[in-house]
Amino acid sequence: AAQETETETEEEGDILERCRGFMASPVTDVRVLQERKDEMSTRMEMLIMETQADFCKALEKVDGGKFKVDQWQRKEGGGGISCVMQDGKVFEKAGVNVSVVFGHLTEEAAKQMRSRGKVLKGKDGKLPFCAMGVSSVIHPKNPHIPTVHFNYRYFEIEGGRCKQWWFGGGTDLTPVYVNKEDAFHFHNTLKEACDEHHPQYYPDFKKWRGVFQFVKSCARTVVPCYLPIVYKHLNDTFTDEEKDWQQVRRGRYVEFNLVYDRGVKFGLATPGSRIESILMSLPLTARWEYMHEPAKGTLEAEMLDVLRNPKEWV
Amino acid sequence: AAQETETETEEEGDILERCRGFMASPVTDVRVLQERKDEMSTRMEMLIMETQADFCKALEKVDGGKFKVDQWQRKEGGGGISCVMQDGKVFEKAGVNVSVVFGHLTEEAAKQMRSRGKVLKGKDGKLPFCAMGVSSVIHPKNPHIPTVHFNYRYFEIEGGRCKQWWFGGGTDLTPVYVNKEDAFHFHNTLKEACDEHHPQYYPDFKKWRGVFQFVKSCARTVVPCYLPIVYKHLNDTFTDEEKDWQQVRRGRYVEFNLVYDRGVKFGLATPGSRIESILMSLPLTARWEYMHEPAKGTLEAEMLDVLRNPKEWV
Repeated sequence: AAQETETETEEEGDILERCRGFMASPVTDVRVLQERKDEMSTRMEMLIMETQADFCKALEKVDGGKFKVDQWQRKEGGGGISCVMQDGKVFEKAGVNVSVVFGHLTEEAAKQMRSRGKVLKGKDGKLPFCAMGVSSVIHPKNPHIPTVHFNYRYFEIEGGRCKQWWFGGGTDLTPVYVNKEDAFHFHNTLKEACDEHHPQYYPDFKKWRGVFQFVKSCARTVVPCYLPIVYKHLNDTFTDEEKDWQQVRRGRYVEFNLVYDRGVKFGLATPGSRIESILMSLPLTARWEYMHEPAKGTLEAEMLDVLRNPKEWV
Repeated sequence: AAQETETETEEEGDILERCRGFMASPVTDVRVLQERKDEMSTRMEMLIMETQADFCKALEKVDGGKFKVDQWQRKEGGGGISCVMQDGKVFEKAGVNVSVVFGHLTEEAAKQMRSRGKVLKGKDGKLPFCAMGVSSVIHPKNPHIPTVHFNYRYFEIEGGRCKQWWFGGGTDLTPVYVNKEDAFHFHNTLKEACDEHHPQYYPDFKKWRGVFQFVKSCARTVVPCYLPIVYKHLNDTFTDEEKDWQQVRRGRYVEFNLVYDRGVKFGLATPGSRIESILMSLPLTARWEYMHEPAKGTLEAEMLDVLRNPKEWV
């Protein structure tokens, strides 16, 4: 572990220097980040800011448009930076959001969140916590360019001299039409990032379990995972029927997002959350057709078949 | 109560005769309905079938299109009739659904549903139940015609010699632009239906509490509540901006419907439910614009103001 930390500090470089490339100033004051530069929370905040900036810039380059950047504060502690590009040339709607929130949990709330780990005891039963993450959903105009979603997050809670922390995240590709090459490229890029660390663990990572090093590698693959696919299909022609199918798939995406996605449900249920930053993951437009069922043998039916019978692409 | 029953039987007429006007055969076999014609469940099933037929026919008349009628069965017991008209001349999407489901609840499940009432004891801890209702959401094309939603429902559960039952329901108008005359007409039509029974109770009905007689009167107002508003605005012209505002409002409707509506959440979470009949309430198309905020003094801003500061229209 000592060796890893050394390698990282080298790679990560000077905080002030890195901040210059971000979409906005980090949520935490830069001087505080400098003072605490070896802490996990600082390294993670820098990573999520960097991921947001790298991804936004890559998308701006291909689209030709500019992200609208909103900084917002949470009155209970912390805040975020929401970047949205709407109705661009390539992207119908692209949202990349960072949030860093902190405050105190009661012992009761901490107990409910915990499925494993020690019971924490705080001063007066209050436990300082910090939750941060970067999340993004990109809805392109062309139905041959898939939707992508990613989320990388960190949570820590302190109780006396004991600190507990969790990492989570992942990247998903949501195509409208099956494309084996794209699927292979996407999964293989993520696999290679994982293999750099511990190739033997890779089968586990698809379900996700890990620590900062792995989160960092995965977060840094969002551009190489997705952008080559965007460039490849940038000038693909498409019919009205293909656009309609995309809109119907978007409808199912909205359904999943609002009914089942735990991040969205948790976000909307959290007092003081910024609703606009949560709903920015919805597409600009969607469509619901009653009893929509593609004809047998079509590319639309092939897509449904793959969704119903998941494949191994790598 | 005896007098009311008499009046009703008169009004309700012969079962076979009434069935001829329905969109499809009732879920319960007609002979069973005839044998049990004085039971609450029979009277309610006839009422919801009649409500569906009256409303569908009134919508077909104004639109010129025809409803697609799907009968479906629930393998655990019961079924339903879904009527959908999509991409019509007047209506973007119109859905009117009847469902009648029955089976057995465990004493445990019955206890969880109950906030008041006796604890029921069944044979082997199983309690026969029956749940039925008619529900509808209509999304017109013209932004000057409001969306309407209604739902009238009945639930009964038997435990030994004791039967418990609940009625529920209501009709809501969801306008895209404020129209005082429409709002008055809508609420006044419902108020008059309630006043026929007990004028002094009216203030209570806006919150809803009642029995079959009131449910019947309310269910029978869906056509006179809504159709005059449709005819009034049928040929209203509208701009692209007005259509966009309608699509943005539809986006909020989808959000409400999928995230907060208890009927939809309960339906999607119920094993064996017919997903297509639940999602038929979604509009054909919707739109989500990040940070959409109408300019001050516009008709769009007036609508938001009324939504944020509810008015008494009658």
